[in-house]
Amino acid sequence: MAPDTNRQILLHERPAGKLLESHFSANETARPKIGEEQVLVRTILLSLDAANRAWMQGPTYRQAVKQGDVMHGYAVAEVVESNSARFQPGAIVAGETGWQQYAALDAKRVSALPDYRPLSHLLSVLGIAGKTAYHGVYDIGALQAGETAVISAAAGSVGIYAGQLAKLRGARVVGIAGGSQKCEWLRTELGFDDTVDYKAGDLMKALSKACPNGIDVFFDNVGGPVLEAALFNMAMYGRVVCCGAVSQYDTAEMQSPRGIPGLLVVKRIRMEGFIVLDERHDDVKASQDLAKWTANGDISVVESVLDGLDAAPSGLIGLLAGENRGKWMVRVGPDPA
Amino acid sequence: MAPDTNRQILLHERPAGKLLESHFSANETARPKIGEEQVLVRTILLSLDAANRAWMQGPTYRQAVKQGDVMHGYAVAEVVESNSARFQPGAIVAGETGWQQYAALDAKRVSALPDYRPLSHLLSVLGIAGKTAYHGVYDIGALQAGETAVISAAAGSVGIYAGQLAKLRGARVVGIAGGSQKCEWLRTELGFDDTVDYKAGDLMKALSKACPNGIDVFFDNVGGPVLEAALFNMAMYGRVVCCGAVSQYDTAEMQSPRGIPGLLVVKRIRMEGFIVLDERHDDVKASQDLAKWTANGDISVVESVLDGLDAAPSGLIGLLAGENRGKWMVRVGPDPA
Repeated sequence: MAPDTNRQILLHERPAGKLLESHFSANETARPKIGEEQVLVRTILLSLDAANRAWMQGPTYRQAVKQGDVMHGYAVAEVVESNSARFQPGAIVAGETGWQQYAALDAKRVSALPDYRPLSHLLSVLGIAGKTAYHGVYDIGALQAGETAVISAAAGSVGIYAGQLAKLRGARVVGIAGGSQKCEWLRTELGFDDTVDYKAGDLMKALSKACPNGIDVFFDNVGGPVLEAALFNMAMYGRVVCCGAVSQYDTAEMQSPRGIPGLLVVKRIRMEGFIVLDERHDDVKASQDLAKWTANGDISVVESVLDGLDAAPSGLIGLLAGENRGKWMVRVGPDPA
Repeated sequence: MAPDTNRQILLHERPAGKLLESHFSANETARPKIGEEQVLVRTILLSLDAANRAWMQGPTYRQAVKQGDVMHGYAVAEVVESNSARFQPGAIVAGETGWQQYAALDAKRVSALPDYRPLSHLLSVLGIAGKTAYHGVYDIGALQAGETAVISAAAGSVGIYAGQLAKLRGARVVGIAGGSQKCEWLRTELGFDDTVDYKAGDLMKALSKACPNGIDVFFDNVGGPVLEAALFNMAMYGRVVCCGAVSQYDTAEMQSPRGIPGLLVVKRIRMEGFIVLDERHDDVKASQDLAKWTANGDISVVESVLDGLDAAPSGLIGLLAGENRGKWMVRVGPDPA
């Protein structure tokens, strides 16, 4: 490989149903040149997120990934050239590099990152996953001590922090996850009070049993039948934090939960969607709290780093199939020396 | 009729589909005797509400109406006998008399009403309808001046006030109603800025045209496909006030809107169900504001009084079919002399 090449993974074909490796293709091109007020960054750690799949379905809170595009993605990267006074070469930044080794980005769309090691934490507990859990549980969900919180995709990158943060608030925490081993792991390693295995059947009944006083806050990453089962088990004045809908991303068949708006009215339920990137979620306190609780061991960090850019497609597919525990990311290049 | 008789309308049979007059039957019995801490009340004006139909489907925010029950209902009534120090004969009160001329009620479940004429206003603008509109638009919806508000069942008992209160707040107000005449009436008589006739087809497109900047607050009394069309037209950070689901009451087939939770997340929408009877909706200010605005003509009161208890079944059926403009109620007995 010549020193100025740039390996990329493209979305070769937009998936109609389940995402497959054949929907992606690899490409080698030259490193891009940067224009005014741009920086050239070298991708270090690429974030894998269920939302990546949603971006293929059409415009969401951002533009869609189109056929032939370098696959979109968010990463921790190092500035290697800069035409902006804001960044010097060597700076560690976060930005939308996409699935490639090098990207030319507008400096204003790149964020400086704190000097923190390991860098991987900046994509997990101190990144979007941790902050999503923090604002979802504390602000949108307004969880109070003594309440019952239920987290779907509880073993996922956001779920593990949502559950741990709910415990720190003094709530009783029930996780929904797939498979008895994941469930046991949530209880024994991450402190969940109880778990429900959605693969074991009759989720509605299992949730009812696990939450005899109803659900006060449902932190939902899944949508579909899981959301429906929770809605029917909400307590009066319950809050549903709509964080994601992973059950709906990798399919052409959308399933809305029954009982809307009837259940919302009868139980005075508030459902609210949110995206942590919005400016309204001021995250200075969130970052401080998350760093403190990580440092003192109140929060366990769970993450896996897959090796090499070419691992990204199978990684995303595995994530959508629920194979992950905690955050998955891809190491595209080494940490700075 | 002997002076001590009590005419009643019973739910003779629980409807499986559309409500028909044959589901009701009339009955004559003796006036009930009252026990300790009870009052005997004489029904004056009986409220007809779409929710009456929902009560037949099963437990909601209150117990279900069962076959053979005196049909449940809320009314303005006069105390004629009292075993409670709280009420003297002659007092005007509100309570759940049911569809009958006389009822024995626990004094603690009866509310004193202010000395106000016409009594009918206590069931419309100054009653549940007006207060529901007030708290829904101002508190749950948090409508701001300059925003776009859309009201479904806009010509209904709650909708007419929701629309007028939204105008008073300085919003642009679009009403959804059935038929061009109702729509014209909303625009010319009640000050709605625009209307959409849901019977004219392609509601989704019509709403999009009427709300070029999207919907900031959707005040929903209807649910089903109307809610769905609004959800797809919400603006970023929009609020959906879930007040009722009249489209779902008179049918066995429940339809949830598509796009949940996906649309909520992408647009950061908040959906919240509420019932104005809850104590959290402190209504001193609401009552004062509504009385003031009614007196000075800022709010037009629209109501129809149907004649005689036996008009209640056909009245409720007509209400569910959308025949009403504003509040419908039934005069069961005369005003106090």
